[in-house]
Amino acid sequence: MTRVARLFFAVVSVFGAIYMGRASGFDDGAVAPIFGMKIPPGYRDWKLISVAHEKGNLNDLRAILGNDVAIKAYREGKLPFPDGTIIARLAWSYVPSEENNKVFGQVQSFVAGSATNVQFMVKDSRKYSATGGWGFAQFKDGKPADEALLKACFPCHAPVKARDFVFTHYAP
Amino acid sequence: MTRVARLFFAVVSVFGAIYMGRASGFDDGAVAPIFGMKIPPGYRDWKLISVAHEKGNLNDLRAILGNDVAIKAYREGKLPFPDGTIIARLAWSYVPSEENNKVFGQVQSFVAGSATNVQFMVKDSRKYSATGGWGFAQFKDGKPADEALLKACFPCHAPVKARDFVFTHYAP
Repeated sequence: MTRVARLFFAVVSVFGAIYMGRASGFDDGAVAPIFGMKIPPGYRDWKLISVAHEKGNLNDLRAILGNDVAIKAYREGKLPFPDGTIIARLAWSYVPSEENNKVFGQVQSFVAGSATNVQFMVKDSRKYSATGGWGFAQFKDGKPADEALLKACFPCHAPVKARDFVFTHYAP
Repeated sequence: MTRVARLFFAVVSVFGAIYMGRASGFDDGAVAPIFGMKIPPGYRDWKLISVAHEKGNLNDLRAILGNDVAIKAYREGKLPFPDGTIIARLAWSYVPSEENNKVFGQVQSFVAGSATNVQFMVKDSRKYSATGGWGFAQFKDGKPADEALLKACFPCHAPVKARDFVFTHYAP
């Protein structure tokens, strides 16, 4: 093989790998158990669905983001969510902002502290037919949660079956 | 003028108007007092900076979004924010989710209710040189807040001068 041909195949291989990586929609990070999911690349850039505050043991502030398929379905009020939908739930510890409270003159401002974990719901009606068409994953600092935790996802989402197992409403 | 020429000028005028509207970065909605700002089109699609909960009289859940200039500056830790930065603060009433609480078995879930108002900070170091380079606006149901309210914006942001008058930190 000539040097030019070798270079050609090398370049094609690299771009092929990049393309395949992108096409899969998931990066090369750790794989979560049961559903075999990875962290979808670029999810931090996705559009906002809504925000929430969970008290109790969680005590977090959270943002729910969606990929373009998810956002389109939400805005059109389309149920069930189509295959390819990914919903991301980011969460941070719920901490008072001393800086903001000084300005307000009272303790009233609570902001996002350190990241707790990130959860994903991926719609693939064939692959995940046993769990309403949804795959579930949770990652903390890039590491996937264990099987026991993920087994609890679908039963917990079951009460909102009428909304295709999704809790979060779109914030106007 | 021939019919074709009239049609030609009509089409050019319409596209020109659309282009000018887009180029300005603001739509044709109501203009806020003092800083002369309109609601920036497409802001609901912007990337997430962070989330917060304000108790007290506000009692809201909020999301802070940024246009691409804002997000780039935040991620690079660049201060002051460059001209063209727009930061949007969306807020919704803080309401308990009975649906979620049923699943958790306790009152712990608070979600975004109806939208309260939207605020914007726009960086234009020349135009808004009297207020640290920032223009401020607030809209409720598309209607701009009055002059008295907007006059309070800059003095309130003054304590965070070291962070270019911006309260919100980027959520990791």
